[in-house]
Amino acid sequence: MAGKPEDKNLDYESPDARLGGLTELSNLYGLTPKVEAAIIGAIAEGHRERLISLIAPLHPADQADMVERLNQAQRHRFTLMMRQHLNAQMLTYLPEDILEEVVSVYGVDGLAQALPELDSDDAVDILEDLEDEEQAEVLAAMPVGERLIAEDALSYPEHCAGRMMQREVVVCPSHWTVGQSIDYLRGLSDDELPDDFYVIIIIDPARRVKGQVRLGRLLSSGRPVRLENIMETAPHQIPATMDQEEVALLFQRYGLVTASVVDAQNKLVGVITVDDIVDVIQEEAEEDLMALGGVSGAHLRASLIASVQSRFLWLFVNLMTAILASVVIGFFDKTIERLVALAVLMPIVASMGGNAGTQTVTLAVRALAMRQLGDDMVNRFIFREAMVGLVNGFIFALVTGLVALLWFQNLYIAIVMGLAMIANMLAAALSGAGIPVLLARLGVDPAVSSSVFITTVTDVIGFLTFLGLATLFLV
Amino acid sequence: MAGKPEDKNLDYESPDARLGGLTELSNLYGLTPKVEAAIIGAIAEGHRERLISLIAPLHPADQADMVERLNQAQRHRFTLMMRQHLNAQMLTYLPEDILEEVVSVYGVDGLAQALPELDSDDAVDILEDLEDEEQAEVLAAMPVGERLIAEDALSYPEHCAGRMMQREVVVCPSHWTVGQSIDYLRGLSDDELPDDFYVIIIIDPARRVKGQVRLGRLLSSGRPVRLENIMETAPHQIPATMDQEEVALLFQRYGLVTASVVDAQNKLVGVITVDDIVDVIQEEAEEDLMALGGVSGAHLRASLIASVQSRFLWLFVNLMTAILASVVIGFFDKTIERLVALAVLMPIVASMGGNAGTQTVTLAVRALAMRQLGDDMVNRFIFREAMVGLVNGFIFALVTGLVALLWFQNLYIAIVMGLAMIANMLAAALSGAGIPVLLARLGVDPAVSSSVFITTVTDVIGFLTFLGLATLFLV
Repeated sequence: MAGKPEDKNLDYESPDARLGGLTELSNLYGLTPKVEAAIIGAIAEGHRERLISLIAPLHPADQADMVERLNQAQRHRFTLMMRQHLNAQMLTYLPEDILEEVVSVYGVDGLAQALPELDSDDAVDILEDLEDEEQAEVLAAMPVGERLIAEDALSYPEHCAGRMMQREVVVCPSHWTVGQSIDYLRGLSDDELPDDFYVIIIIDPARRVKGQVRLGRLLSSGRPVRLENIMETAPHQIPATMDQEEVALLFQRYGLVTASVVDAQNKLVGVITVDDIVDVIQEEAEEDLMALGGVSGAHLRASLIASVQSRFLWLFVNLMTAILASVVIGFFDKTIERLVALAVLMPIVASMGGNAGTQTVTLAVRALAMRQLGDDMVNRFIFREAMVGLVNGFIFALVTGLVALLWFQNLYIAIVMGLAMIANMLAAALSGAGIPVLLARLGVDPAVSSSVFITTVTDVIGFLTFLGLATLFLV
Repeated sequence: MAGKPEDKNLDYESPDARLGGLTELSNLYGLTPKVEAAIIGAIAEGHRERLISLIAPLHPADQADMVERLNQAQRHRFTLMMRQHLNAQMLTYLPEDILEEVVSVYGVDGLAQALPELDSDDAVDILEDLEDEEQAEVLAAMPVGERLIAEDALSYPEHCAGRMMQREVVVCPSHWTVGQSIDYLRGLSDDELPDDFYVIIIIDPARRVKGQVRLGRLLSSGRPVRLENIMETAPHQIPATMDQEEVALLFQRYGLVTASVVDAQNKLVGVITVDDIVDVIQEEAEEDLMALGGVSGAHLRASLIASVQSRFLWLFVNLMTAILASVVIGFFDKTIERLVALAVLMPIVASMGGNAGTQTVTLAVRALAMRQLGDDMVNRFIFREAMVGLVNGFIFALVTGLVALLWFQNLYIAIVMGLAMIANMLAAALSGAGIPVLLARLGVDPAVSSSVFITTVTDVIGFLTFLGLATLFLV
């Protein structure tokens, strides 16, 4: 969920103070264990006024956290009790599945009334999390003005600039003076002003962006100064169809605070501010981390069934890999029968390859996400990884060879071990670097699928070279 | 590196336009392959004027990217040629090792002259990346005013709010009117104004923070309005000693744009803005991802030796784990000799445990980083993971048991396989959930060390239960 802009009214306080005992932590986090216990108590007792008086002073983010902490039955009661007093802003902070639960109790009409209170990007944030049918019902029940804005935003693909952007923009022509602009701003109603803005966008009569003036600059300049004289050109105009990940990279690279969003005709359609980017960066980094760990989409408070399901697929795919490795071992059952030391040592080769492969994959996935693996870098990266694999392969060939020699007093086992180690570390480096790049070019998320392929390669090559060489030279 | 605020002057353009062929990409990214080639050419030919004319119009972030893309010899030449024209802002975008290289050519005096051009947080950003000795020399050569500010910042521990914050703050008393505040701002010199600010902080005579007024609100209010009437209370005042990770979590949770930083006496000492947070979030998420993949601190353009070293330690620790697993297998060499099917199937049990453990560790590491695993959640999390492990353990016991039965036509192998699978999946869940929590409580980074322990557990338990049960019941 992109874009949880700071709320207009920051005057949230900690009810903990009223419950006695204002600690340092409760200065910073509104939801303390004491408040949580009091809220759960109020829900249990059905004490509506008390519940409202405990919830209202909390920041919407804390309210959402509280709703998440409740169990399903408590959440149901809570939503019924708070129905008329639910803070619409709070909904933007809820994860998708919890939002669905709350909305099912809150009802389509309740939501349709609440959404127009929010900025357009926040309303879209909630709408896009709903099921298609529910979304259509809520849209139909919304006031026509807000509905059209929301429908326009939803017409852009998910996760793109057109969805993230704020449509409320303050624009002025470049020939205006500082004084004129300030008078203009003072004349706008609260409804016309965005909740939060840091720049005035300077446009030409065709609504094309000429530049921007920071509010700090505007305030410190004299009234007669013309905007064009304090305007910065804005080279980073974001196409409305750009993916949020690309937008976040631009913001990061150039330290942007506000960027204009333009349509295909280069006309201004909205702005994106850095506070909307914070969530995107968090989200994108988390997605890669979770995907590499095989727990995409998992979260801490998911139900048991959802958790089992979310782990199952990944484990099942890995089981196929493991069975394939076993089939390879099965080819050499006669060899192992004659020399059981091979069965003892063979996991070492496979496991070292797997770990080296994971290292390279992690580096590749991160570099791809940060757009650091352009065409000019790919060959250099694969070559570099192959060299690293070879060097470490030689080092670990010596170490593991020595271990094998000391353990089984057999020079030939040691040599076979060393050769297999070099081969597998090289295979790990080549597949660890090459497969993510290939998947990315095919349009598949490398974070999700790479490691299965790499484990397959390192297991198969590991067992095949070790047991194969042993069959040739030892038995 | 925290804090790369937007530059005062945004008027960077793409020299690509002058080289012919303005593409859409070059609108957004200044450093195109054509520009890069032209710059490398100018360095090779020693054409100083041409180099400067190519570099100057680039955004400092692009300049830094260019410096990174050069090889060591080119970088040396580049720094010498650009010496008098180096953009100090560019230095803030360089990674630590490249910065060291550039500074060694640029020299202490050059750096000491360049740093005062920057905002205090940017100067500190560069200073903290230098070796202690070099840092002391540069500080000694800096003008006394800037030196004292930098020394004060450096007196705070690394990665804390006191280092990140901007010391240039605009403050007003609450009884001032909007008109008074704007006149005051107009009277300030460029040096007294921060490069960028979004709020005016309202303080009392003891410099304690009473609240803040957003510039947008200030601009849209009439001149006679008193600040106290448009002020928001600011409940999130950040202690100067707070770790940057905690600061980033506060900004994210509450969607903050600006937060005051206060000392132990609750007096205002600086502000942190959301654009400084973007880098922290990026950095912290990347650290966890890289640590889990066993490539902490690695980066794409590291030297071969540095790359080999950065991978070696992790692989070596994992080798110890693999050898331990082999020792366990060695206990059962007689069993394997008599029934070689065990050698074929045993990697499946270990590998499924390893993958399930990785899933749980990933979830745990992420939850710990997001401060979602408080005391109230830990037991619930471990219990939940154990349940997920048991359920998936039973499912995969059936699947792998069936595979073993069909493959080797031996019901007892199938039963042993199933029992070992359940035991190992449970062990994976318990260690995957428990070890990161334990490490975090001991003050060890769970992202770095957890997976080695978990692999050890799942390898040992996997081989031990499978081969042990087989020894008891089969041979």
